[in-house]
This record gives sequence, structure tokens and C-alpha cells, in this order.
Amino acid sequence: MHELKEECGVFGIYGHGEAANLTYLGLHALQHRGQESAGIVTTDGSRLYAHREMGLVSDIFTEEVLSGLTGRTAIGHVRYSTSGSSHPKNSQPIVVTYSKGEMAVAHNGNLTNARTVREKLESSGAIFQSTTDTEVIVHLIARSTQEHLISRVIEALLTTKGAYCLLFLTPEFLIAARDPYGFRPLVLGKLGDAHVIASETCAFDLIEAEYVREVEPGEIIIIDGEGIKSFKPFSEVKHANCVFEFIYFSRPDSFVFGGNVYQVRKEFGKELAKEHPADADIVIAVPDSGVPAAMGYSEQSGIPLELGLLRNHYVGRTFIEPQQSIRNFGVKLKLNALKNVLDGKRVVIVDDSIVRGTTSRKIVKMIRDAGATEVHMRISSPPMKHPCYFGIDTPEKNQLIANSLNIDEIKQYITSDSLAYLSLESIHRAIANYDSIAKNQYCNACFTGDYPLDITDSRKKLKQLHLF
Amino acid sequence: MHELKEECGVFGIYGHGEAANLTYLGLHALQHRGQESAGIVTTDGSRLYAHREMGLVSDIFTEEVLSGLTGRTAIGHVRYSTSGSSHPKNSQPIVVTYSKGEMAVAHNGNLTNARTVREKLESSGAIFQSTTDTEVIVHLIARSTQEHLISRVIEALLTTKGAYCLLFLTPEFLIAARDPYGFRPLVLGKLGDAHVIASETCAFDLIEAEYVREVEPGEIIIIDGEGIKSFKPFSEVKHANCVFEFIYFSRPDSFVFGGNVYQVRKEFGKELAKEHPADADIVIAVPDSGVPAAMGYSEQSGIPLELGLLRNHYVGRTFIEPQQSIRNFGVKLKLNALKNVLDGKRVVIVDDSIVRGTTSRKIVKMIRDAGATEVHMRISSPPMKHPCYFGIDTPEKNQLIANSLNIDEIKQYITSDSLAYLSLESIHRAIANYDSIAKNQYCNACFTGDYPLDITDSRKKLKQLHLF
Amino acid sequence: MHELKEECGVFGIYGHGEAANLTYLGLHALQHRGQESAGIVTTDGSRLYAHREMGLVSDIFTEEVLSGLTGRTAIGHVRYSTSGSSHPKNSQPIVVTYSKGEMAVAHNGNLTNARTVREKLESSGAIFQSTTDTEVIVHLIARSTQEHLISRVIEALLTTKGAYCLLFLTPEFLIAARDPYGFRPLVLGKLGDAHVIASETCAFDLIEAEYVREVEPGEIIIIDGEGIKSFKPFSEVKHANCVFEFIYFSRPDSFVFGGNVYQVRKEFGKELAKEHPADADIVIAVPDSGVPAAMGYSEQSGIPLELGLLRNHYVGRTFIEPQQSIRNFGVKLKLNALKNVLDGKRVVIVDDSIVRGTTSRKIVKMIRDAGATEVHMRISSPPMKHPCYFGIDTPEKNQLIANSLNIDEIKQYITSDSLAYLSLESIHRAIANYDSIAKNQYCNACFTGDYPLDITDSRKKLKQLHLF
Amino acid sequence: MHELKEECGVFGIYGHGEAANLTYLGLHALQHRGQESAGIVTTDGSRLYAHREMGLVSDIFTEEVLSGLTGRTAIGHVRYSTSGSSHPKNSQPIVVTYSKGEMAVAHNGNLTNARTVREKLESSGAIFQSTTDTEVIVHLIARSTQEHLISRVIEALLTTKGAYCLLFLTPEFLIAARDPYGFRPLVLGKLGDAHVIASETCAFDLIEAEYVREVEPGEIIIIDGEGIKSFKPFSEVKHANCVFEFIYFSRPDSFVFGGNVYQVRKEFGKELAKEHPADADIVIAVPDSGVPAAMGYSEQSGIPLELGLLRNHYVGRTFIEPQQSIRNFGVKLKLNALKNVLDGKRVVIVDDSIVRGTTSRKIVKMIRDAGATEVHMRISSPPMKHPCYFGIDTPEKNQLIANSLNIDEIKQYITSDSLAYLSLESIHRAIANYDSIAKNQYCNACFTGDYPLDITDSRKKLKQLHLF
Repeated sequence: MHELKEECGVFGIYGHGEAANLTYLGLHALQHRGQESAGIVTTDGSRLYAHREMGLVSDIFTEEVLSGLTGRTAIGHVRYSTSGSSHPKNSQPIVVTYSKGEMAVAHNGNLTNARTVREKLESSGAIFQSTTDTEVIVHLIARSTQEHLISRVIEALLTTKGAYCLLFLTPEFLIAARDPYGFRPLVLGKLGDAHVIASETCAFDLIEAEYVREVEPGEIIIIDGEGIKSFKPFSEVKHANCVFEFIYFSRPDSFVFGGNVYQVRKEFGKELAKEHPADADIVIAVPDSGVPAAMGYSEQSGIPLELGLLRNHYVGRTFIEPQQSIRNFGVKLKLNALKNVLDGKRVVIVDDSIVRGTTSRKIVKMIRDAGATEVHMRISSPPMKHPCYFGIDTPEKNQLIANSLNIDEIKQYITSDSLAYLSLESIHRAIANYDSIAKNQYCNACFTGDYPLDITDSRKKLKQLHLF
Repeated sequence: MHELKEECGVFGIYGHGEAANLTYLGLHALQHRGQESAGIVTTDGSRLYAHREMGLVSDIFTEEVLSGLTGRTAIGHVRYSTSGSSHPKNSQPIVVTYSKGEMAVAHNGNLTNARTVREKLESSGAIFQSTTDTEVIVHLIARSTQEHLISRVIEALLTTKGAYCLLFLTPEFLIAARDPYGFRPLVLGKLGDAHVIASETCAFDLIEAEYVREVEPGEIIIIDGEGIKSFKPFSEVKHANCVFEFIYFSRPDSFVFGGNVYQVRKEFGKELAKEHPADADIVIAVPDSGVPAAMGYSEQSGIPLELGLLRNHYVGRTFIEPQQSIRNFGVKLKLNALKNVLDGKRVVIVDDSIVRGTTSRKIVKMIRDAGATEVHMRISSPPMKHPCYFGIDTPEKNQLIANSLNIDEIKQYITSDSLAYLSLESIHRAIANYDSIAKNQYCNACFTGDYPLDITDSRKKLKQLHLF
Repeated sequence: MHELKEECGVFGIYGHGEAANLTYLGLHALQHRGQESAGIVTTDGSRLYAHREMGLVSDIFTEEVLSGLTGRTAIGHVRYSTSGSSHPKNSQPIVVTYSKGEMAVAHNGNLTNARTVREKLESSGAIFQSTTDTEVIVHLIARSTQEHLISRVIEALLTTKGAYCLLFLTPEFLIAARDPYGFRPLVLGKLGDAHVIASETCAFDLIEAEYVREVEPGEIIIIDGEGIKSFKPFSEVKHANCVFEFIYFSRPDSFVFGGNVYQVRKEFGKELAKEHPADADIVIAVPDSGVPAAMGYSEQSGIPLELGLLRNHYVGRTFIEPQQSIRNFGVKLKLNALKNVLDGKRVVIVDDSIVRGTTSRKIVKMIRDAGATEVHMRISSPPMKHPCYFGIDTPEKNQLIANSLNIDEIKQYITSDSLAYLSLESIHRAIANYDSIAKNQYCNACFTGDYPLDITDSRKKLKQLHLF
Repeated sequence: MHELKEECGVFGIYGHGEAANLTYLGLHALQHRGQESAGIVTTDGSRLYAHREMGLVSDIFTEEVLSGLTGRTAIGHVRYSTSGSSHPKNSQPIVVTYSKGEMAVAHNGNLTNARTVREKLESSGAIFQSTTDTEVIVHLIARSTQEHLISRVIEALLTTKGAYCLLFLTPEFLIAARDPYGFRPLVLGKLGDAHVIASETCAFDLIEAEYVREVEPGEIIIIDGEGIKSFKPFSEVKHANCVFEFIYFSRPDSFVFGGNVYQVRKEFGKELAKEHPADADIVIAVPDSGVPAAMGYSEQSGIPLELGLLRNHYVGRTFIEPQQSIRNFGVKLKLNALKNVLDGKRVVIVDDSIVRGTTSRKIVKMIRDAGATEVHMRISSPPMKHPCYFGIDTPEKNQLIANSLNIDEIKQYITSDSLAYLSLESIHRAIANYDSIAKNQYCNACFTGDYPLDITDSRKKLKQLHLF
């Protein structure tokens, strides 16, 4: 029920007798980060074995498929496309052969100089099979003149700009790399003697791995038979953790950037109630993403929390809309307003963000149709005015409603009686309350437009490929 | 995440240009009542057109399938098997030809004299293709010596005992019948000039139909070109609405037996807090079924509601369990405990019922593993001691934990610090607060063993068929 | 490449440790008798296990499916519909329960009084789930007042008229029945201690079973733990073996009605060369059905046999025809004319029959387009003037070209230079040369219109059902 | 029923309103050249549209898939792997982007210096996504410093050694190239104003295109809006048409290397009868590949041709073998021996080649089991002693029976009474009789070991990749 598409999730494990099975479970726990395709590549120390497909993790990885993925080391990927169109060719992990043998790569993020680097590579004869950023990195590694893989990876990443959490797999090594800004989360854990790496801690919970620490911004970790080594080849930059991981993307039970997502989100709701109180009878959430903030809003304000909108979780990919017009059909398939709860009530409705505004408008109408006398929309983040170039699939700038309309105009568009957004200051105050890593700094570019690094290249549209 | 299997759902529409499309949406809204198979039969006034398959509504009914289901009148069915094994042959609606032509039937419920009637029919030469109760009714109609369909249906139902909401479709008529006890819900609505019938009102909400009234216990409604007629051929009996529709089965946004399910469920939580208070820091729910009662418990007790367990909605049919033992694997795939929320806390955990006790035991363990210092289990219904013979797929009596253990023993088994169930009196008090139909009377047999009608026949196991 | 659709094939085996596997191989050998659907039912002595599906035998019966079909006795069926529309519901074997338990039936043939019997059954309350003839027989068995299954089967078959080879399976018995006229072939064999029954001997060859004898016309065989018993409950009638089994239906390597199909077919070709010589350079066949007769024609006439038409065996169910018109597209997908072979030649083209004439017309045109100077069509059977009511799916009478046009007119329609059909006398002379069962008598009704039994009922169209 | 796997087939069309549809039909006609995967890439002049999948042409290209392949120019490919393992990644046409935009390539053949070139490319940073030879060519084109595509292609092919018929597609151009030796066939045709190119003429017959001429060995043809241009950039070498295209690979109705395959094959049979007569009662073929030669043998020798082995064309991918041993199970699924034909006869059995000898041995046994008194095996080609490195998937040298055993030993192994092979002289004499291109010269390396070019590189095993 959200207008923002999730990005990607990665998982890796080194040195476990059930590497493929555990990767599959890890990806299942990370499914919310990408429902379009999934893939696993394993190694037995001499070769790579791979399987990737469009679809959900639990549909793709049957017992038969998993039994073919032999070996004690594996990486996996779930994907929603941020760069590269939705197509099997763009599924990850990418697997290639180059002069040093086989290599697989899984990537969560978005490069900001991919176009420029790609053009340079092409002009010296490189060929591309996908439209993903990730293939650029693979070319850089293949062309490096360094001997050892870690040196090649470092050389390649020194050329690469943007947001990335990367996992590389060869028959010998598992390498994890996080960009110097630390845009996207990446955590390191242990499962017995095995090392595990994942986008979020919820993947560790399912397989009962122990959280050790974050892979740090700018850190490259290489794991082989001799253990784990860490490299920090980049100049220090100001960190830029994606604040939206707290607002919407990460799973509430995960612990990212040093804080628990649910607790931070609930704190957003409390701050929202302080900043923007409402004279109302009930608080309701837009499920599921608005629930924690609504709980916080209710707790802080004392206004009782009610189930005003019910979510139908059976929704498949496509639905045939009848010709008889059904008001707000797309939203109605997923949400139903509870008349008995809403009728005659002054309602505070809490959501995490407004993107285009069309869904919010439909939801406000549904609540009014159900008999609410007043609808007060409260958003647990600031107005989203700028597209993300660091791994989140936001619409173009002119489609972001807060880019063209001010808050009062948005209120009129979505037809609510009042509308208020949580301030950036409160966002950071809320995070600070739960942040176990004091020095964290965040990327707020979607609210402020202050991009932590140059995005000229990203604005150029990659000439679109329509393969397959 | 529930040990009880849902039963079935039915939907019908008479006289609408998009009968198949709207039936498909109606069934989508009723998907929670049965995820095993679904079917739609339509008529254009001269013939029947049918499609039924194993799977979810949104997967089965593609645009191509729907376009073949022509006509202005339709019935549909979603199924989880209560009688008859899980098999394509047992999908509904059933379609047959008999001396008067074609007829389709969709059934929610369970007959209590099916075995006896079936044996009688077989001894006079009847052959059966499925193991469902419903086929018995069809035979009775086919063998009736009455001329008009409605008389045949009445004659058949006078022989039939048990719980049923039935929809019959022929090229001329749409007939709806509800048993005299009114075990299962069935509601009547309007969509423009078209008549609609559904198990729950949530199906009306999606297609924007207007709720008119319940089909009354013992009522048979026949709809044709001349309009709608009602028959009440049965002797009056004491009504026996299934109290479990409020406790667990119906969708929270539905209005059944005159009350809104969510509001009744939240009221259960409030009553539970009054009857069985706990000295605790937080209240959490077993999602999704325990959420409304947990909200009520929190509101009544003043103990803050927290998200202590997160549900993963991406769970598919089967999962490969790794050999390395993962504690509580089955539950963990669907639920994750939030350590940061639970750590060091005294926790009230609210669920709607305990069936076998195995899931509750795992959940309590997960909460303790997450650091909770005390776990107080609160159940928003009385101990379930007796199987249901009226349409709910309960396990055998000896598998119901409350049948063999007392509350204290159950508490020990599930390893909670305290355990309390809501009393039947409170259940009825809570319902009464929200009941718009004053005279309602409920079936409490699963708690009391007082079955509203003789179940001798049902206890006999139907000799199991393993077709296909 | 043939305008006549095949009918059905049956296979049964009693008392073998791999009953399902061998039935699957037997059906594979009988695949030419029906490519629409296939099914196997097995028994372990206490229950039946069944699987049936639309499609080819080798696609339907995977290792997993076969492993679920346990037991030492099985029957199987491949189907092309002769009665009952093409639909999963009409797949066979049919499985039902009735007063005596479970029973499965597989049927090759066509009843001539099915409509009358069905109406009678329906008027006394019978309900039907399929539109096949076979369901009528099952009802008659279920309604019989006889105690023993064999008596019930006999009573049912005494009421039934028409063409049938039937296999019945219950947990105790395997029964085979062939109608008194012996329209369709049915053979009995041995595989070690196991008894096997099949439509044609080619099924025995694949599993290395030994041919014992034909199941005789009017014979009912019952096999159980005590061995094999034979009943002949019908009055003796003049036999009516289907001559078309030799002309087109049976596989060339089979031995049916006491003769080898290939040898009889080649003999047809020799007789054709004697009766209707042609002054030509080469003889070619319409593959595959015309090949043996063309070999005989060449051998007898001394005119060399050439490959003039090549068949493409990769043809799937549907093909998208381009808008640019391709002459004779449907035929061209399956057959290509060899220009180098045909160019400048006077060609004798041998086919087994002409049904509507449209395919023959296209083939003659293809041969001329390839450069043939003369085209002499020779048909290895008499003109087909009358529909079959005994198990072959012929078109309506008015669509049979020989019913409305004389030979000269047909020649003009198909644009050949000459056209000649083999006489019925020669057909019977050819068969006699290879017939090991001297007393055989044949049904020639499709040529003569002399139906061996009353077909009044069959001419009535069954009110068409469109289930699923 | 053949131990040699087919290679690949290509088809291209420039400038036709139904380019995709006609390519699909062309590939259908070429299906015998590769049944593992198929693909089509089209262009509308600005972009490429592609679809490729594992499976048969008629299953892959549904109406929906074809409708997405827009544009007036297309290339297509059917594949059985000769280099690169059986895997979706190795399906063709390959589609890539490089500095000049998009390009697709389809390849029939096998490069002999692929390994060497690949290593060189990898050492300068190239990455590979498939294990096919074809990707090497694409890299060479991408790295060429020439400006125009045709110059890049020429530069790339000057580096490339081995057997190839290549089709290249870009938004502007369709390019066809055939190696200087002319190993594999490639023909040029016209369909109205459109140009068509295919591996064999049978593809032209189906779409009613007109054969114009062969693409000559060493010729590169480029087609664009201005018409068709021809380049011959290679030094003249002695041609080396693959003699096995006549013996087994090409379709009998095709016209390749200037001769009709069926006629040449029948002539082989006649030569065989002259060279190696047999005192026998009947001649039979191993269907389908042995049929034309058997016809020739019969015609020349006067020994009547009979249908001694029947082929079952319904054979799917896999069959479950029963535990009860069935003699010669694999062969028996596809072939059945006709007892009535073979019993008591002295039989000449004609096949096109013997590879490992295992199938021939089974066939001889089947014929004896059917009662033949003598079995005389006649092979319409010389003993195959050397693997092919030019596009045919032969087994390793030590698996070729004629490499380790002499003819008498082979005869003993296959248990025939006599065995004789056609001499290479007779092969060439037979071809000469039907060759319309006088100057043709053939590659006989599989018989003689005289490879027309250096194969050192090909003998090196490519380090095996197991992607997906």
C-alpha cells in the first residue's frame, strides 16, 4: 500500500554446511526489500553454482533448486529494480567469468557515476548484457591490473561513486563492501563458526545468528579460510545513513544504523503528536507502514488507537477492474475502512510519508465515506521534495507532490481537514533517543535537496534497453 | 499463524452486467474464509459456465478465464475443506445435470446427517464423485418428485440437518438458503438493481454494494426475473450463531450477526483486562488475530500496547527446514520477536484462542528468548474443549489441549507465568454491547459441549476416499 | 495430418509390483488412440488411487505422480473425445463411490442408446457430472439390485447398446468387457504371473508381455486373487469388427482382429495397384498413414516409391498464421513437398481415406506447385459416405465429401488428374490373406450405411453441456 | 533415435511487415537443427526486442510473445549446444550493448580458436556471461577500432577461426556471414521485397520464399535500407562443406550445398547396394534417418522394402524405467520391431551411421527377437573415427566405436551377421550426381581425421562453467 518501491536486499554466509538453505531463509526475511526477483550463488571452493528467477523467494527456491546449490559459502539477493528495467537479465547476483575465473556480485544501492563509467568502458570495447549499475563494477574489477582480488575490488570501488552495499563471491573469497557514506545498512554476524552478512538484522533473527556489528561505511571485508580481514581504503567523508530506512524501508524488527526500527518509528509518532496535536476522537494508521507511528501518536496524545483501515494481505500482482466504476479501486483492493469504527468520529490518520498524494487522497475519501466527520492527516516525516539517487525508487521530481505544492495545497488536494508533517529536527531527535552509535549522520536529501555527493550523471537517463 | 483452519465463503449476484467480475472481487474479499480452492459459475439464462481451481482467487481468475464466464448472474465459492479431503474434485461450486437441466451449488457449513443420508442414497443406486456433504443435497434435489425448483430445494433441506449457507444457481434462478439455527453468517445486499449475497459484509464493501439485511436463519430466498421471494419452511428452533465468527473467523471489518467484528473483538479485550488484570509493563498481540483484543486490553488496563511480535506476510505454502535445528522454526518463519521491545519487560500477550497449545508454547519461548522477564498469556475466549461439527475444522477432541489439561496445567505446558481465559459470560456481555439484533443466540458448543443438534452421524468417520 | 480423430485406448494389469509404471508405458504405446487426456487408477486391495489430466502420457505421469499410484493392479485410459466435449471432467477412468464402495471405469467405444438410458435415469433422480456415455454405465451398475459385482456389470451391459471395450476396477476385481459385436479391438496377455489387457498388442510389445488371445466379442472377463474367469452373457450376434482399425486407426505394428495392421495395409496397396493401375513415374505416400499402402502399390506396380512429402513431427497444438496469406498453411506446417523429387514427374499419391476432401485438395495443389505434371490420387479404402456411431469421431454426414459428390466430382474438387478408391471386396480379400481368425466379420457401415444395430438414439444430439 | 545431437539453425528476414511471425515459422521448419532452446530478436529501426527460452519453437512463441516482437527485421536461432553447456544463459541470439548501441548475434557452428581468443580478451579485462563461442565474436566487434559495423565485423572475423554461419542484427543492419570453408549451409532467398536468410531451404518452403542462392563460403552480406551488399574479405581456401549435412543433419526436403538431401541420401543407398550387396529377403530402415538410403538400397538391389521398425513420435524428454528389466528399454520407447514382418526373414537393415554402437546393438537384438534369421547391417557412410570440431556434437574420440574397433569387431559387438559401410569414394560419387554446384569440396574429417584447419585450441577443454 505504499507508493515507494523497495530497493534491494543482500545476504551472505561463509563456511556453513547449509549455506544455500540459510541464504534462502535470510532472503525470505529480507523479502520486503525486493519482491521482483531473487537469486543465490554458492561455491564449493572450486566452482560457482547459481540460480536466479523472477518471483518470491519461497516460490523460487524449491528443495530441488536448493539441493543443486552446493558448497559452504553463498551470497543471495532480492531485488526491486532501482536501475535497469524489470527483467530476468537484470536479476542478481550477476555471475561472470573473467581472467581470474568466476565471480558473482550482489548489489544494494545505486551508483551516481555509472553512466559516465559505462560510456568510458564501452568506448574501449566493453559489452554489456544488463542495464544494471552493477555490471559496471564487474568490468572495473575485470580490467584492473592488480593481482589479488581485494586489490582489484578496491581499485574498482575507488572509481565508483554512489550508494552501495556489495557482496562478491569467488571460489576462494567472500567480500563485503559498503560505500564511504554508508547510505544503505549492512550488518555482520556469526552463526557458530560461520560469518554472516545481511542488509538487516531480521535476517539474523530467523536463522538464529548473532549480531556482531555494522559493516562500517567505507569498510571492505574479505573472508577466506584464514578468517576475516578488514580494509578501509577510502578517504573519510561525512556519513550519510539513509533516514528513510527508519521512516519506511527497514523491517520494524530490524536493528539498523544502531537503532531498532520499530522503536524509532514509534518515537516519530510521539514527536508528531507533540509537534502537531489534533483535537480528535480516535487515531488510526495506514497499515502496515503507519502502524508504529500511530501507536506513538496515540500513546503521546492519549487519543485511543483504533483499527480504522484493514489491510487485505492476499493481494496478487494484477486485478481486473470492473467497468462499473468502483471508487478508489486500487486502494480498496488492499484497504477497507471500518464504518462502525469511523462513523461520526474525528479521526487522526497517521502515515509515514506522502509521495504523489494520489493514495493519500483516496484514503481520506474512504475514511470520509465511512462516516468520519473530520480527517486529520499526520505524516511521520517531512515533505518529500527531491528524488533519491542512492537506491530508492522515487518518482521524478515533478511527480512528488511536495515539490510543486505547499502543505496547505496538499491538504486541499488530499481533501483532509488538516495536514501536518514531522519536522526534520524531530526526526533526528527521535533517532538520537534510540541510536546506539552516537556519531551517526544521515542523508536527508529527499527532504532538503542537499545531496551528499554529485548527482549530475544520475540525472542523465540511461538509454533504455528492452531486452527480453 | 492460527491452528484453526478457516471454513468456506460464498458469494452470489443476480442481474448485473459484470456478474463474473464482481463475484471474483467478492471472493477476493472473502479469501480469508478459504485459501485452498475457488470457483465461479455464471449463467446467461440458457446455460451455465464454470471455472474452479486449486489456489488463490487472484491467481485463478485471469482476464481470460473471467471473459469466458458470461451472463448476468453468478455464484462463487472459496474453500478450505471441512468435509471431503483436499482435492480438485471437492472444489465448489459443484455443477451437475439432472432431469431438469443444469444446476450449480456452493456451500458453507457442514451437515450432521450427511453420512446417514448418503448411505440411504447409495443403497438406492446413487453414485458419488466427491466426498463433500454438498453432493448429498444435490442428490436429494434431483430425486425430489416436486416440480418447481424451490419445492425441490425445500424438500431436500427438510431432510438435511446441520450447518449450511447454500447458494443454488440454474439458468433461471439464484437461490440462497440458511439453516434454521443460523450457524454461519449470510448477508443480503443491493448493487443498483442487482441483488447480492455474501458470507460477510466485507465482500459488499469492496464492490460498493449496500448491506440490506441478514438472510435469516431458516430463510430460503429465490431470485428470478420477477424479483426476490422469501420462504421460511422450517419449524422455529433456538438460533445458534457461531460465536467463533466473532472470536476468530470473520474479517474485523465485517458486520456479522448484527455486530462489527473488530469492535466486538476489542470489547473482548477490555472484558479480559477487567476479568484477568496483570501486573505488567507492556501488552502485545499475537498478530493478526490477537490484535483487536490486545488493543482493548491495553486501553482498558492502561498498560501500553507495543509491537512485540512482527508477522511476515510473504510466507508461502512450504519451507525447507535446515538440518541445523532452528528453535520454533515453523512459528519463526511467520513471527519474529522484537528484542528491543521485549527485553527486560513484564509482558501481557493476548491471543484469541489456544487449540493444541503447541504454537502458544513456541510463542512464549520466543518472547522469553527476546528477554521478557514475565509472560502473562491472556486468551480472549474460553478454553476450547469440544470439536465443532458445524463448519469449522477443529482437531479431534483429544488434541484440544483444554480437553485434557486444566488451566494450570496448560500454563505449565506453554511455560507462561500466568494464563487466563475470558469467561463465556463476558463473551456474551461483550457481544451484547455491539449487537444490533437483540434476539441473537449463540452456539457455544466448542466451549460447553452443548451441541444445538444431534451429532451422532458426524462422529462417524466417512470412509476416506483418496481420489486423485 | 488426418481428418479423422482417433478414439480411445485402454490398458489394464492385474497383480504386478509395478502396475502403475507398466500402465503408463502401455498407455504411451497407445498414445495414437487419444492425445487429449490420460488417466491411471490403481488399487492396493483396499482403496483406489487415481490421477488424470489433459495432455500427453509422457507429460502427465511424472515420477512423483506415479509413486502416488500404489498397488499391484491398475487400469488406464487415453482419450480423444467421441462423446462428451473436450474437458477435464470428461477425462477417464471415471472414479465413483456407490453402495458397494469405490469403482473406476475406462471405456473405448460409443453407446448407441446412451441418451435414452440417461433420460430414464435422470427422471428417477440420477445426477450427472460429465457428458460421457460411460457415466450411464456406472449408474446402471450402481442401481443394479444384484449382489456380486460381475452380476451388476452383466445386468448393466444387458441394458447398454453400442460399441464398448470396458475396464472396471474395484479394490477386489479387474473386469474387462467387450460388446457382442466386437467393434473395437481388445487383447489379453500375460507378463509373468500378471494378466494384462490392452486395446492393441503394441502395448504388450513395449512392456514385453506375451499376447495370449483376443478378448472375444461378447466376453466379460473377471480377474481376482483366484485367477481369471470368463462369462458370455449375451445372445450371439454377427460380429462387426471395425474395418477402419485396419485402414487407419491401429498402429502398424499391432496385431488386431487376428491380423498385423502393417501387412494388411500394404496388401491394400497391392490390391489398389491391381484394381486401379496408373501410368506414372513415381509413387508417393501421404505420411504417415498412407505409407504402407504406398509401399504395396509400388511393389505391385513396379513404379518406384519416392519420398515426395516430408512430415514435420514437431507440430504443437496451435500455430499463429501470418497475415500474408500462405497457401495451404495448415497442411504446410505438417507436410512439405520435395520439389526435386516431384518436378516433371507423373505422380501416384496414396492415402488411406478422404473425409471432407479439403486436406486432399491442399495436398494435390502442393504436389502440383512442386512441379508434378500429373497427380493420380489412390485411396486404400472405399468412399466414406456415412458417419460412425461406434467410437470414431467422424464429421456429420453432410460434411463427408463422398456423401454428396460422386468420384468424378471429388476428383474435380481435389483437382487430381485421376482418383480411384479401393473396393470393399478387395478390402476383405486383403484382410483375409492375413487373418488368423477365419470367422471374422466386419462393420463396413461407414462405406455402406448398413449399421449393425439401431442408431436412432445416437442421431439425437445430447443437449450440450459446457462445464468448466 | 540418433546418437548424434543436432547443431543449430539460424533464420533472418529484412524488411517485412511480419518479421517476427515469419521468423517463428522459419525456426519451426529448422527445429530439427536444435530442440533445446530458441530465440528471436527483432528491430523497428530504433531498438531491439528479444525473446528466448528453453523449449520448442511452437511452445515458446505464443501470440502474446510474438506481438511484443515489433519491427520489420528479425533474426532467430534454434539451438542444441555444441559449445557451452545446456543452459538459458547460452540461448541465442545473444543481445548486448556496446559503444555503438545494441547488437544481437545468432551463430551456427563452432570456433576452433575460441579458447585462445577468449583468454586474450580476458587478460585485457573482458568479462563473459555465457560459455558460448559466440560471445567471443561479440567482444571482438566491440573492441574493434573501425567505425562502420561492417568493418568491425570483418575485423572480428579475420581473427576468428572455425565454422560459422552468423547473423548480426542492429537497429540499422542485418548482416550474414559464412566462414571461408563453408562448413555449414546458409542460403539466401526473397519474399516479395524482403530478403531472407536461413540454414536450409526448408525454411523458405514453409513461408513461400524463393530460393536465390547460397551465401557463399567467405561471403559477408550486409542488408540495410539501400539494399544488399556483398563482401569477400578472406583469402580463398579450399572449401569444406560438411558431408554429414547430407548424411544425417539436414532435412530431406532441403536443398543444401547445391543438392537435394533426400535424393543424395537415396543415392547413398543405391551405392551401398552396389558396393555391399546382401543375400536377403527384405530391406528395412532405422527410422527416420535411415529411410531414404533404405529406399535406395531396395530399389537398386530389388529386395523389397518393408516396415520392420516403427517409430513412436510421442516420446517426451524423460521416461521412468520400470524396475522389472525391459530389454533395450531406451530404444524400445522409440522403436518397435514388427514380428509379422521380420519373422523368419533374412534382413538388411540400413542406418546412416554408427556412433557409439550401443543403439545399433540394441536394434540388431530387437530384430533378432522378432524372429529374423539373419541381420545384415548396412551403413550409408564410412566408419566415423574422429570427433567434429566444426559444429556437430560428436562424443569424444574414444567413445566412437570405429576409432577403437575394426569393422569385423564392430560387427561382433553389434551382433549382426554382416556389417558394411559405404566408402568415401561412393559418398562423393553420389553427391556429384546431384550437385548443381560443380566446384564443391567437402570436409570428411570425421572419417579421415584430415581436419581442414588447425584444431589444437578446440581440443583444450574450456574450463567448465556451471551457471544457473
